[in-house]
Amino acid sequence: MLTNCKNEFPEAEREAIYRVIAERRDVRCGFTSEPLPDELLNRLFTAAHNAPSVGLMQPSRIIVIRDLATRQSVHTAFCEANRQALESYTGERREQYASLKLEGILDAPQNLCILSDANSSRGHKLGRQTIPETAIYSTVCAIQNLWLAARAEGVGVGWVSILDPARLREILRIPPHIEPIAYLCLGFVDSFGNSPELERAGWEQRIPLAQVVSYDRYSEEPAEPKR
Amino acid sequence: MLTNCKNEFPEAEREAIYRVIAERRDVRCGFTSEPLPDELLNRLFTAAHNAPSVGLMQPSRIIVIRDLATRQSVHTAFCEANRQALESYTGERREQYASLKLEGILDAPQNLCILSDANSSRGHKLGRQTIPETAIYSTVCAIQNLWLAARAEGVGVGWVSILDPARLREILRIPPHIEPIAYLCLGFVDSFGNSPELERAGWEQRIPLAQVVSYDRYSEEPAEPKR
Repeated sequence: MLTNCKNEFPEAEREAIYRVIAERRDVRCGFTSEPLPDELLNRLFTAAHNAPSVGLMQPSRIIVIRDLATRQSVHTAFCEANRQALESYTGERREQYASLKLEGILDAPQNLCILSDANSSRGHKLGRQTIPETAIYSTVCAIQNLWLAARAEGVGVGWVSILDPARLREILRIPPHIEPIAYLCLGFVDSFGNSPELERAGWEQRIPLAQVVSYDRYSEEPAEPKR
Repeated sequence: MLTNCKNEFPEAEREAIYRVIAERRDVRCGFTSEPLPDELLNRLFTAAHNAPSVGLMQPSRIIVIRDLATRQSVHTAFCEANRQALESYTGERREQYASLKLEGILDAPQNLCILSDANSSRGHKLGRQTIPETAIYSTVCAIQNLWLAARAEGVGVGWVSILDPARLREILRIPPHIEPIAYLCLGFVDSFGNSPELERAGWEQRIPLAQVVSYDRYSEEPAEPKR
């Protein structure tokens, strides 16, 4: 019997929230050339800006990259990092890696670099003294908010992590005290996949939920709820 | 003119998604003693499990902590870390810090520890060679999914980062290869605040969105969109 449901969202809204979580994808293909309107981008940024942050420090910063020459520089940096990554694989896995499309830097008309001002004095260090990484984690929460809002707007988002952060700092003139956290390609897409692209490509399979949950102490055995 | 809106969610669903993002709170007070049903927890865990993960590695692990003695040990660890944190403040700020309630470890009938198996071979290192931190970032995305789903279910979530990770490892028997990322207190609550608790308490104020966005290169000047 539930007595405390007065704060829950109506069923249709809850379903929408679970649906956007389930249907969000990491998108690397199928971006259209139509730029995202400023108002839409602004809604996505507001979603990011509403993320939790340790001590209410709000460390997240956003660079919108529309300039083609800048995107071309980032794309060159990607190609270099990706060539090095390819060299680490052999045999069939190497062929498979080479066949994957892993970014949409030039296809998507806008890219975003999400950064963290992780050492700012805002928040007065509350919650950061024992686990300073929480500043950066706050920025990752902002990224996930933006990603979900984008899916609801029909906007594909792809996170490109095959990039040397030092190159990104040079290209986007990111000062030393600011940490680049994610490089995202954003755009309208023709469709969203029913399952993750890496699963469809045979790169990796998802694992069942039961395998990741344990009770009262860490365990790698699939667990049963314990009361 | 938008021609590519066939993938967007209906307006009412989009609004629900923006609303849950805006109304999510970091909750430390007002947890009721009613335990969360397993089916509800399972929905929250499914939301977490649906998070993006680099190379589809799915590094996130969850420990559900209901056992009172275990929560008492964690609470003791919090008190120790919080006492040390308090010592770092002086004057009015110290008094203010001392007056804040920063955890609900014993009030909330269940706690979660969210962990990351950040060095596993799953995902075959795709996307992790230049930025290995993306494994941990994947787990933070899972935490944000869970947080939003919880808000939609009327469940308060508070992230306790005032804890020595080494003590948490001992208490929850977390092996060296697994990284504890977040310790969360979860439970039904009487109400959710209209604004962040730290803002209401006068600890910190939110900043305007315009202050965090720049165009084509990093800038700390409030920016105007540039096309």
